[in-house]
Amino acid sequence: MKAKARKTAEGFLFTDQYQLTMGQLYFRMGLHEQEAQFEHFFRNYPDYGVHKAGYCINAGLEWLLHWMEEVQVRESDLAYLRGQKSRAGNPLFGEDFLSWLKNDFSFTRLNMRAIPEGRVVHPNVPLTVVRGPLAMVQLLETSLLNHLNFQTLIATKAARIHESGRGQLLLEFGMRRAHGLGANAGARAALIGGADFTSNVGISHVLGFAPRGTHAHSMIQAFITLGHKEIDAFRAYAEIYPDDCTLLVDTVDTLESGIPNAIKVFEELRKKGHKPVGVRLDSGDLAYLAIQAARMLNAAGFPDTSIVLSNNLDELVIWQIITQIEEEAPRYGVDVDHLLKRLVYGVGTRLITSHGAPSLGGVFKLVALRKNGEWIPAIKISETPQKTPNPGHKNVWRIYDRRGKATADLLSLEDEDPRKLKKIVLRKASDCTKGRVLDQSEVSEIEPLLADILQAGRRVYESPSIEEIRGFRRSDIERLDAGIRRLMNPHIYHVSISQRLCEMKKALIRSVKDGNSA
Amino acid sequence: MKAKARKTAEGFLFTDQYQLTMGQLYFRMGLHEQEAQFEHFFRNYPDYGVHKAGYCINAGLEWLLHWMEEVQVRESDLAYLRGQKSRAGNPLFGEDFLSWLKNDFSFTRLNMRAIPEGRVVHPNVPLTVVRGPLAMVQLLETSLLNHLNFQTLIATKAARIHESGRGQLLLEFGMRRAHGLGANAGARAALIGGADFTSNVGISHVLGFAPRGTHAHSMIQAFITLGHKEIDAFRAYAEIYPDDCTLLVDTVDTLESGIPNAIKVFEELRKKGHKPVGVRLDSGDLAYLAIQAARMLNAAGFPDTSIVLSNNLDELVIWQIITQIEEEAPRYGVDVDHLLKRLVYGVGTRLITSHGAPSLGGVFKLVALRKNGEWIPAIKISETPQKTPNPGHKNVWRIYDRRGKATADLLSLEDEDPRKLKKIVLRKASDCTKGRVLDQSEVSEIEPLLADILQAGRRVYESPSIEEIRGFRRSDIERLDAGIRRLMNPHIYHVSISQRLCEMKKALIRSVKDGNSA
Repeated sequence: MKAKARKTAEGFLFTDQYQLTMGQLYFRMGLHEQEAQFEHFFRNYPDYGVHKAGYCINAGLEWLLHWMEEVQVRESDLAYLRGQKSRAGNPLFGEDFLSWLKNDFSFTRLNMRAIPEGRVVHPNVPLTVVRGPLAMVQLLETSLLNHLNFQTLIATKAARIHESGRGQLLLEFGMRRAHGLGANAGARAALIGGADFTSNVGISHVLGFAPRGTHAHSMIQAFITLGHKEIDAFRAYAEIYPDDCTLLVDTVDTLESGIPNAIKVFEELRKKGHKPVGVRLDSGDLAYLAIQAARMLNAAGFPDTSIVLSNNLDELVIWQIITQIEEEAPRYGVDVDHLLKRLVYGVGTRLITSHGAPSLGGVFKLVALRKNGEWIPAIKISETPQKTPNPGHKNVWRIYDRRGKATADLLSLEDEDPRKLKKIVLRKASDCTKGRVLDQSEVSEIEPLLADILQAGRRVYESPSIEEIRGFRRSDIERLDAGIRRLMNPHIYHVSISQRLCEMKKALIRSVKDGNSA
Repeated sequence: MKAKARKTAEGFLFTDQYQLTMGQLYFRMGLHEQEAQFEHFFRNYPDYGVHKAGYCINAGLEWLLHWMEEVQVRESDLAYLRGQKSRAGNPLFGEDFLSWLKNDFSFTRLNMRAIPEGRVVHPNVPLTVVRGPLAMVQLLETSLLNHLNFQTLIATKAARIHESGRGQLLLEFGMRRAHGLGANAGARAALIGGADFTSNVGISHVLGFAPRGTHAHSMIQAFITLGHKEIDAFRAYAEIYPDDCTLLVDTVDTLESGIPNAIKVFEELRKKGHKPVGVRLDSGDLAYLAIQAARMLNAAGFPDTSIVLSNNLDELVIWQIITQIEEEAPRYGVDVDHLLKRLVYGVGTRLITSHGAPSLGGVFKLVALRKNGEWIPAIKISETPQKTPNPGHKNVWRIYDRRGKATADLLSLEDEDPRKLKKIVLRKASDCTKGRVLDQSEVSEIEPLLADILQAGRRVYESPSIEEIRGFRRSDIERLDAGIRRLMNPHIYHVSISQRLCEMKKALIRSVKDGNSA
């Protein structure tokens, strides 16, 4: 797409058509300025098939805010809408509505509360709460979900991969398999969730990181095609990058050619006073080859060089590689811990596409409308009680047990504060008779999760840096029970609602069922 | 991301770091202007788990060309590269290389041949062939793969869904679950592959389409919350969009409330001389509900209204729905063909993310280098013979049998023309003794697939419109055998190489194995 067209496709019209047709309907019915509250949440953790997430890492808010702050209804956008025709050939959008869009529409009239980026989050918890004129909040939906669903999905995958790699350096390499320009949002989310660096140069620039990368097989191939040998390519690389020399050793033959050649070049570097960085393995039995590489590098006096693994890695593959190394390394006289501590994981496709679960089903639901100054909770009854959203204004609390571990998230009505209660009643969202009661003595902390972000479109929230966001992620994951962090078949974290919210919901469901059929 | 930062992240630096470190290495070794040829191809069809593609639809070229034509090395890009440091604290990129980037670098120096968008394509066939100075072609890799892998992936999924829906209207609805701005490239690819329209307003604008969409559950909910009923929301919608009235009927209760209310409103519309468009079903047993909706609409005298189905659809779900309708509709007195012909499929998440296979493994490999005026074929030997790419300059031919069906793609050396041969020898790429021989009398047509696209950066190709690209897709799919088109366990299409190419490859593999170990 040409840059000029991108301005159109990524601006105000980055939305679904039905947001605009609904917007005009609200306008014509005089409902467009009616104050409304919508909540964004997801219903299920990503399910990757044989494995499933036990928590998500919230991400995407900052870029959504940038979009809201910058987006404008341009004349060319209005001209396009003006040209849309009904099936009868009349203009689909009237001048009255278009002039409202032109003169009165702005996301800077909205209020927003949200759980900060980097925080661990769970299903059915409001992550982003938007309040403002009905037609404006409705028109935010598509872009909000697009920004938040994807970054949360990728931050979550990155956290899992980081966990499976036991905190070793993790590099995001997936640009070429990413979904178009989603490569950039994905790289940011990966950096939030657990990647230490990315190969993506542009996004590294934008976020203030140093991008990572060395060379591809094609470089070795080019040398060989011109009549040189693998080692000539290695020598050229070492000459130009003497202090950043990581060599890809699997172009010709990893054990027979690549590693021996790398060791020769490392020795030459050492003589000149440089410290070689490492080797990269990109094919074959990575666990076996890592052990052999370690053995050979150790024997040659390079025990500190790192061994970068890549090639379709994800959390399960990394887990398997580590398990295999734990079993096999001792047989070759290689110390397991020493080897695991020198591993670096380069993860491409399966991180940036969230392989196994390439979407997060976040939704944005109307929860309340103001009529004559009074807020009325809204509800949509679903066939399955679990899918019926929790109505009305709410607060979100995270309750930590005496060990300091998160034990439940609690949704309460807006005027409830569980910190002031002696006993905290946690109800199942779909059944007010089920749940548990916690005594304050069992609780070490009750933390409100929602922060004020926008008030009348103005930021009242100081956006944290990526480094700070990563800090939230690290400390939140540490405060999860091991069972929740488990890669496969994780323990289910409790998301509960307060007794009062439960009663209110029950009453509402009854009144809708009584009053609104046919 | 702010718009200003987007310029950085989507421009020249939209690449992997190793392209730049390799670029500088080529520059320092005096190889950067050495003429090289790279080929883009994929090795495997998307594998969705229980089902798998038997063909792909090529897409993404036009947007890649836009990117190549517009991208510039900006001062701020150079400043960022200038600031990158080696581990020893020295500048990673030298002024010599940066000044080459500034003064001499341009994708407009490249030559490109490619298979046009919309064409059916298969594994190991060169889809895009780029020739030019080594460092420049190398620096194109990431963006090329990003553009082409994703759009081809989505066009392929869209073609499958379109096939499973038997050509009924297909609407792309997936923006909210798309991977960030990849929503736009994905919507374009969906339109190429099989979607008739998209809900994405911006991309519809850019591509000259009318976006599609009606209303969400939230509109009904807003009315109910304010004390009105479902039918009031329907009436409001019908009043404002009398000629485009498609009503979402599952907010309260599909059969008890939604459809009866829709019929009432349709009757009111009819009295005023308008033709109602249809209903949309977004939850529940879609096959059963479609039958009941058809029955009720028929009985009310609305046999022509469409029934839009949505909710996690993909090619298998649609196939199942159609099968169920074929079995059950007669029991309710509903004509199967009549019902199937009024169905419209709204497909979101599973199309725009290519659910089951969210990436296409396209690669970009060096196949030849020019030295002293002569082209030398390049090869990378892989442990698996199937993974060893075909070296050197090639042509790609599609051979049609007497029925006019495509029977094989043939890769030949550049100076071979199978149209001039009496007998066409098709060899297995991994084994020169295996394959088959076709007599010209068995062949109805031999078609060259690669078109000239860029010569010295100038387009020599008249880009087809989306409508024309869809025409290529339609006629190519028609010329596939039914077994290749099958959704599950498709028959494997033959991709062969000529005897001469096979011999050349064999000789090259031998010489690399002999000459380049250690």
